[in-house]
Amino acid sequence: MRTRVGIIGAGPAGLLLSHLLHRHGVESVVLESRPRDYVERRQRAGVVEHGVARILREAGVGERMDRDGLVHHGIELRFDGRAHRVDFTDLVDRRVMIYAQTEIVKDLVARRLADGGQVLFEATATALEGVDGDRPRIRYEHGGAEHVLECEAVAACDGFHGIGRRSLPEEAVRTFDRVYPFSWLGILADVPPSCDELVYAHHPTGFALHSMRSTTVSRLYLQVPNGTDPADWSDERIWEGLETRFALRDSDWRLGRGRITDKSVTPMRSFVTEPMRHGRLFLAGDAAHIVPPTGAKGLNLAMHDAVLLAGALRSWLLEGDESRADSYSDDALRRVWRAEHFSYWMTTLLHADPGGSAFDHRLQRSHLEFIASSRAAATQLAENYTGVPGI
Amino acid sequence: MRTRVGIIGAGPAGLLLSHLLHRHGVESVVLESRPRDYVERRQRAGVVEHGVARILREAGVGERMDRDGLVHHGIELRFDGRAHRVDFTDLVDRRVMIYAQTEIVKDLVARRLADGGQVLFEATATALEGVDGDRPRIRYEHGGAEHVLECEAVAACDGFHGIGRRSLPEEAVRTFDRVYPFSWLGILADVPPSCDELVYAHHPTGFALHSMRSTTVSRLYLQVPNGTDPADWSDERIWEGLETRFALRDSDWRLGRGRITDKSVTPMRSFVTEPMRHGRLFLAGDAAHIVPPTGAKGLNLAMHDAVLLAGALRSWLLEGDESRADSYSDDALRRVWRAEHFSYWMTTLLHADPGGSAFDHRLQRSHLEFIASSRAAATQLAENYTGVPGI
Repeated sequence: MRTRVGIIGAGPAGLLLSHLLHRHGVESVVLESRPRDYVERRQRAGVVEHGVARILREAGVGERMDRDGLVHHGIELRFDGRAHRVDFTDLVDRRVMIYAQTEIVKDLVARRLADGGQVLFEATATALEGVDGDRPRIRYEHGGAEHVLECEAVAACDGFHGIGRRSLPEEAVRTFDRVYPFSWLGILADVPPSCDELVYAHHPTGFALHSMRSTTVSRLYLQVPNGTDPADWSDERIWEGLETRFALRDSDWRLGRGRITDKSVTPMRSFVTEPMRHGRLFLAGDAAHIVPPTGAKGLNLAMHDAVLLAGALRSWLLEGDESRADSYSDDALRRVWRAEHFSYWMTTLLHADPGGSAFDHRLQRSHLEFIASSRAAATQLAENYTGVPGI
Repeated sequence: MRTRVGIIGAGPAGLLLSHLLHRHGVESVVLESRPRDYVERRQRAGVVEHGVARILREAGVGERMDRDGLVHHGIELRFDGRAHRVDFTDLVDRRVMIYAQTEIVKDLVARRLADGGQVLFEATATALEGVDGDRPRIRYEHGGAEHVLECEAVAACDGFHGIGRRSLPEEAVRTFDRVYPFSWLGILADVPPSCDELVYAHHPTGFALHSMRSTTVSRLYLQVPNGTDPADWSDERIWEGLETRFALRDSDWRLGRGRITDKSVTPMRSFVTEPMRHGRLFLAGDAAHIVPPTGAKGLNLAMHDAVLLAGALRSWLLEGDESRADSYSDDALRRVWRAEHFSYWMTTLLHADPGGSAFDHRLQRSHLEFIASSRAAATQLAENYTGVPGI
C-alpha cells in the first residue's frame, strides 16, 4: 500500500492529523493496533483548552462538542477547608470545554470514515524503515498477514509505549524525565456532579480532583501511593477519602455518592523527547511527551502538535517548502515545555509529597494562599490552564 | 536597671522597634553585644521595599535614605544571553529603594541617641528569666560586670544565633528548615555599577547578581558550592566568573572591573520558628526567621516585625489591651511565609541546582521564559519583590 503520510495511532493526535491533512488535500493512512470499540471507549482526559476547542470547531469536528460539552468558566481550589474560585473568564477572558477525549476520538473516527479516510484498526506497526531516506516504510500486521505501507513521511502518534519513539536512533535524541512519588486512583460514578466546575483539593492526606463527564456521570480522583492496587480501595474507602479531602468548613456542601462503574490507578510522569523529528519520522502527542494529568494538558498538547504537523507536512509535500517541517520540533517544544512546567507546577502545588518536609508543606500553603489573594498569581494559573495563546 | 521593653540586638529590627516605641511613649533599652562601629559597618542587604521605605519616612528616619538612596523601578533577569526587564512601576506601581542596611542602622542609632534612647553596645545578654511570668529579666554583661535588666516585655531581635530563640522552651516551638546546596560569594568593588538596576543572572555555571551600594561602589555575587573558601577565588577568577554569567549575546555591554575591597561567602538557608511569642518574650527579624538572600526579604521582614511588635506592645503596655500582642505571631507569620515562599521561589528559579536533572534545568528555562513573556507572571514577581501590601 502507498500513501503520502503514514500515521501510526488512532488517538486524538493521529486522527486530527489525518483529518487536517485531508482538508489540506494530503492523503494519509492511519494504522491503529487496537479495535475501534477499544479506542472509542478508553477513559482519558476531558478538559479541552479554549484554543483547542476552536481548532476542532474550525476543522468542522466541533459540532457534538458544542452540543454536549460543558463550558467551564473557572475552577475551584480547596485547601484548609475553604474554597477559592479561579475565574478564567474574568482573569483571561478564555474558557475550557469539558468534553471527554473518548468523545473527540469518536467524532474524529466517524468523520474520517465519512470522508473516505483510511483508518485501519487492529493494524499493528512492527517496524519503521528508511526514515533517514526519501522513502520511509511502515511494516505492519493486519488480518493475520504482514503488510508494508510506503509513504513520504511517517507521523508516530502512537503514545508513550509506541514504536515511533523507539525507532529513533539513540544517539539522535535526548530525553528528559521525572517520576512522581504518587499516583491517581480514578473512578467513574453514576452520580450527578456535586459541583458545577472542577474542584482541585489540597489536603494533608493527599490531593483529590472532582471532575465530570456529563450531567449524570462524575469523574473523581484521589492521590494514592505508587503501586496501589485498586482492589485495596473499597467503594466505601474511596468515598470516605474523597469526603475528607473535599470537606468544607462552614458549609453544608456534601459530595454526592453513586455507583462506581470504573476504578483504575494512573502513575504520574513527566517526559520529553528532543527533537520530535528525525528525517522523515515525526513524533506527536504522547509519543514525544508525557505530562502528569494535574494540568489537563496531555490531550491539548497532542492537538497542538497535530495542527503544527499538518501545516508543516502540507507545505513540504504540496509546495516543496521544508522550512516548517524543519522547525516543527522547535515550534512544538516551546508549548510542550510551557505545559511541562505548568503541569509540574500544578502537581507539586496540590499533592501531598510523602517525602516533603514540614517546611515544604508550609510553602505549599503560602503559595495556595497567594493564588487565592493575588490576581496576578491567579491569572498566571488561568493563562496556563486555558492554554497560552501564540506560543 | 529597669525599663518597659528590654530589646536584645541593635540590628534593624531592634533599633526600629526601640525608635517606634519611643514615638509611642514606651521606654525601652537596647542591649547589643558588639561595639557600635562593628554594627554600623557589617555588610548586609540593601533593597528596601516600597512600603518599608514609607515606614522609615513616616517614622522620621528616612531623610538620608531619600537623599542618598537609589530609587529602582525594576530589575533585570538575564538568561540564555538575553536580558528581560521586570518593570515594577508599570506592573504594580511600586518601587524599591537601594539603601544599605548598614546605613539604616547608622540612621537609627544616631536617631536613638539623639532622642536620649538607651542603646548599650558591648552589652551581652547571657540569660532570659521569668518570661512565663509578669516580670521578665535579662541578665547581661557590660563593662566587665554582670547586670540585670528588669522589664515588662522582652524583644529578642538578636539574629539567628542569638539567645532569644534558644530561650524558648523546646516543647513550645516548632521549627521549619531548608538548607540549599549552594552559597553566595559576595564582593564589594570600587567601580561604578555596570547597570542602572539589579541584574539577576541564571547561567548553566551558576547564578550571579549585580547590585550596588552607591554610584561608585558595586556589590556583586556569584553562586559557589557550599564550603567554598573565599581565598580560593582570586580576583581574576571572580571577574571571569561574573563576566561569563552576565554575558549578553548581540550586545556590547561589558561588566566594569574595580578594586575588590571585601570578599565573603554566605550560605543559603530558609528557617522559621513558630510561634514568634512565648509569654512575655517576642521574637523579631532573623531571630525568628531566615530567608535566602535572593528575594531581598530579610531586612524587610525585620522592619515589618518591628512595626507590628511596636503597635502590639503599645496597646498592651499603655492601654492594657493584649489582643494585638496575642495575635502578633500570627500577624507576622502571614508575611513571613509569603516571603519564605517567594525567597525559595526566586532561589530555585535562578540558581543552578548541582543535584538537578536535565528535566529540572529545562523547567527553569521554561519558567524564566514565561516570566519574560507573561505580564501576570512578571506581575507576581513584582508584587512580591516590592512587598505585598496589606498582608
